[in-house]
Amino acid sequence: MSSLLGSWVDGAAGTSIPIDDRGLQYGDGLFETLKVRNGRVRFLEAHLARLALGCERLSIAGPDAAVLRGEIAMAATQAPGDAILKLIVTRGSGPRGYAARGPFTARRIMSLHASPMLIAGDGVALRIARLTLAENPQLAGLKHLNRLDNVLAASESPEPVFDSLLLDASGQLVSGTMCNVFLVREGRLVTPAVDRAGVAGVMRGIVLRECAALGLHCDVRAVPAAELQAADEVFVTNARIGVVPVRSVGEHVFTMNAVATRIASHVERLDA
Amino acid sequence: MSSLLGSWVDGAAGTSIPIDDRGLQYGDGLFETLKVRNGRVRFLEAHLARLALGCERLSIAGPDAAVLRGEIAMAATQAPGDAILKLIVTRGSGPRGYAARGPFTARRIMSLHASPMLIAGDGVALRIARLTLAENPQLAGLKHLNRLDNVLAASESPEPVFDSLLLDASGQLVSGTMCNVFLVREGRLVTPAVDRAGVAGVMRGIVLRECAALGLHCDVRAVPAAELQAADEVFVTNARIGVVPVRSVGEHVFTMNAVATRIASHVERLDA
Repeated sequence: MSSLLGSWVDGAAGTSIPIDDRGLQYGDGLFETLKVRNGRVRFLEAHLARLALGCERLSIAGPDAAVLRGEIAMAATQAPGDAILKLIVTRGSGPRGYAARGPFTARRIMSLHASPMLIAGDGVALRIARLTLAENPQLAGLKHLNRLDNVLAASESPEPVFDSLLLDASGQLVSGTMCNVFLVREGRLVTPAVDRAGVAGVMRGIVLRECAALGLHCDVRAVPAAELQAADEVFVTNARIGVVPVRSVGEHVFTMNAVATRIASHVERLDA
Repeated sequence: MSSLLGSWVDGAAGTSIPIDDRGLQYGDGLFETLKVRNGRVRFLEAHLARLALGCERLSIAGPDAAVLRGEIAMAATQAPGDAILKLIVTRGSGPRGYAARGPFTARRIMSLHASPMLIAGDGVALRIARLTLAENPQLAGLKHLNRLDNVLAASESPEPVFDSLLLDASGQLVSGTMCNVFLVREGRLVTPAVDRAGVAGVMRGIVLRECAALGLHCDVRAVPAAELQAADEVFVTNARIGVVPVRSVGEHVFTMNAVATRIASHVERLDA
């Protein structure tokens, strides 16, 4: 799928981590998926801000910001054209036991990947996952390493789809397994709140921020899954793909994509 | 806390894993904490059965059973007296992306630790965690690697306690972060069902199995947290500690422990 261009552990070229790393032992860490364009990371400040918030909420003493910026910049320059830089920050190595009674030294793990396939122009096909997401306000919004729900949901479908939409136990739409989702109806946008489940995606944040510049209004609230059928347009977002129209969710086909296309072009042109 | 006596990756002495292991990337794997006594793993069959069930539920093609048994036996013989053997099985290495579209080769990661501190004879002190567990029937019962809830709950208390009891969002008792919990009232036992949240501990299973031999009855059902106050005795179980009476939960003190002590002695004497 994507070929590895390089990897680093704590800033040094490396391909392995100690088995006592709490990222492996407990999923005790966070990650960011950074889009590299022309040797530069897009929306770096937004990624670093989310990472810092995640470290704060998990009480992880995060990596030194200047060191991290330097390592990201170094890795990004090794990318030929477009690439994906995945950054994992774990709480670090420690003895057995759940309690995070330090001191720990956070571990930085970076891998640079050739940019995967382009998205077809007419949008992507989604399905609705059978798995439902648990509400977990303690972890909601964070891009943490506990991703078994995403793995199981993304693995449900025998035929590959672009992504699977996740509902919570009460039938509210949350997101895709790897994307956030927006609905457009009569020119108004809505995207699910992610304070009970899901990830507060960086590209989701960019779209919310840029709506004003585009004269658009976007609500952030609980979104019953039934609103999908009533939507004129649906689009998905993440840092890697940007903004991408949805062609279908299961059997339901969306024929409009003007708003998504307009936002996609705008975001693509942003100087970041 | 516990000192490392040895570690193995896929059967060979080793201390590291590749960063593309899905255990690190997504917590995509399972673990077992095995108690070694006199060079032999206690309740090995129960551990292997739970691991196999977990692999099945996560659609992980588990390690070859004979190979795994051989590696566990080899590691156990290196333990001086009592020890803990932690076994992690991940889905293995793979490309970026949540979907588990193989083929993958499961990775086996073992670490042998000197047996931690003895438990005080008069029982252990617990507290109730502020964090509430989400209901997640897809993952409930499994000893999987997505353990951030346990990490956060175990890290809440400024002063160390033996363990923190977890409630679900509707106020039902689930377990400790690292133990299962049993209540005794008027000679009858009850332990929370773990089909919505929590882990189906191996020692929990042994206690349930042995109740009949001891002429005891144990209900397995939803247990409102208020039943803690009404209990005559409370005890906790896991493979490492066996069966241990609880002296207190927060301010509430339990003065009785006859049933727990009787079960503990019985389990301790079992030939496994």
